[in-house]
Amino acid sequence: MSHFIGVDIGGTNIVFGLLDDELNLLRKSKKPTGAANGVDYVLNLIASTIDELLAEQGLSRADLGAVGMGNPGFVDPERGVALSSANLKWENVPVAEKLGGLLGGIPVFIDNDVKMYTYGEAARGAGRGYKHVLGVTLGTGIAAAMVNEGKLYYGSGFLAGELGHVPMEGESALCGCGMRGCLETIASATGIARIARERLERGEASVLGEWFPGERIRDITAADVSRAYDAGDALAADVLRFVGVKLAIGLAWAITLWSPDVVVIGGGAANAGERLLAPMREALMPLILPMYRNRVVIKPAEMNDDAGVVGSAAFARSRAGL
Amino acid sequence: MSHFIGVDIGGTNIVFGLLDDELNLLRKSKKPTGAANGVDYVLNLIASTIDELLAEQGLSRADLGAVGMGNPGFVDPERGVALSSANLKWENVPVAEKLGGLLGGIPVFIDNDVKMYTYGEAARGAGRGYKHVLGVTLGTGIAAAMVNEGKLYYGSGFLAGELGHVPMEGESALCGCGMRGCLETIASATGIARIARERLERGEASVLGEWFPGERIRDITAADVSRAYDAGDALAADVLRFVGVKLAIGLAWAITLWSPDVVVIGGGAANAGERLLAPMREALMPLILPMYRNRVVIKPAEMNDDAGVVGSAAFARSRAGL
Repeated sequence: MSHFIGVDIGGTNIVFGLLDDELNLLRKSKKPTGAANGVDYVLNLIASTIDELLAEQGLSRADLGAVGMGNPGFVDPERGVALSSANLKWENVPVAEKLGGLLGGIPVFIDNDVKMYTYGEAARGAGRGYKHVLGVTLGTGIAAAMVNEGKLYYGSGFLAGELGHVPMEGESALCGCGMRGCLETIASATGIARIARERLERGEASVLGEWFPGERIRDITAADVSRAYDAGDALAADVLRFVGVKLAIGLAWAITLWSPDVVVIGGGAANAGERLLAPMREALMPLILPMYRNRVVIKPAEMNDDAGVVGSAAFARSRAGL
Repeated sequence: MSHFIGVDIGGTNIVFGLLDDELNLLRKSKKPTGAANGVDYVLNLIASTIDELLAEQGLSRADLGAVGMGNPGFVDPERGVALSSANLKWENVPVAEKLGGLLGGIPVFIDNDVKMYTYGEAARGAGRGYKHVLGVTLGTGIAAAMVNEGKLYYGSGFLAGELGHVPMEGESALCGCGMRGCLETIASATGIARIARERLERGEASVLGEWFPGERIRDITAADVSRAYDAGDALAADVLRFVGVKLAIGLAWAITLWSPDVVVIGGGAANAGERLLAPMREALMPLILPMYRNRVVIKPAEMNDDAGVVGSAAFARSRAGL
């Protein structure tokens, strides 16, 4: 019976999962990425950790069907090349070829991390049983991927789905991408914290002002806004309602253009939960045609920490034809 | 050598095309739809016209590989059923089965008309040679379809691509769908005429007020706004600029979510040409990430009147595996 490895690499940590043939997660592991040591260091670390995981389970490379890996940034999944990743400082790294070589020829498949996350939720998480799954990750930024009947949607250059960088009319905050008013300046952990800070700086009353006096205002995070909401803070509720409405506009466009059966919302900022999702749902329904309204289901992600590794392994199994 | 028939059915007319194996259009024909006479009348008319076209070319049904047909409204292309069409007053009509029966068993494939139009432009028109083609039709409304490497994108219920019914912030005009502020209340022939009329009614100066005095203001069409633009009218230029900017916002979202290589813009309102497309292009470029900006091409449709029949025939050829 073939086993599969899923790897989820980020700027800080690499998460590894060993899965059986039915994509049950048998074993997990986590290592610091150490990206500053260069590409070869990281790929060698991945190969040796894979060997460790196999050994711990009493397996060897001969039991491995394929390895899948989710990379931050842009990826060419056909050639298995990490095109560019700001977090890892990787440019045009032939990951599939290099890592496959270190593993003695085991097939390696890579893709963008949000695509792998969505693939995991579609295969084994909140999207299970639906044909058309839209995955949205609300974290430092916001991103999306679409899985149709088990296949990721790519578009030209594998670049589809940059839901963070769509123009929101009337908004003007500078985005990390250089444009202004992108959805991710609002509907993200960064956006929630920024909007709360700006309203405090304009003199609005909030328990956040007591918790973060003076200069400490800079330390406010999205999690603090949720905490303030739970303490009954009106400003926090208003910020999350505002962000929820903007997120609804983004989802209305995505639902209308892609027509998913289910929208799975994950990522760290999704921890705000119904504080954010309740006003989002309320705003969303009047913005989409009845035929979508009656069809689409909005669900929180079910396997947040595991979606990346499980999705990577499932993707590798599918690509390897196993 | 197999031949193919493409049929483009609308509320007023049906256009027929007879194509050879290489999708060259050999012969065209047009008949009034006569939808009021009922489904069977229309399907019999289609079958007899197909026989006429074949005979005129010295061919018979034995020379026919497949028939494709583009329907207004919602279609299930897998089962070949016209689910609902307001223009034809059709509900759940099994077109493929019925028309195929009338034609002695020749395979019939149907799909939505905008999808067929885009399929035609992708196969033989402005999208030829591109892998990922976004087709946008600007007519009474606005609609879109996406063809990826020769395959239409469908989504759940085959409902993807209703670009006319996405929410435009700050807009509130009532849309035919019952929602307010949909893109098609602005970026369409109806929208162009409505906005010009409303500004005239607010007392703004324009040559359109001289051409359409008093009650006749209701007769203003999008074509009249283009005529006024050509006469140097400031209001007409401003209306087309405004509509162009809103269209740019719609395209920015569509490009970012779908990542096409080319956007092909057709339909009657696209006759405004550069009067509308120049301000659209200018507004669009700053709204999309550089990776899309450097990649995507915006082109007018090349085969407006023929795209529907050629697309329908090409779709049928592909679905029949010929």
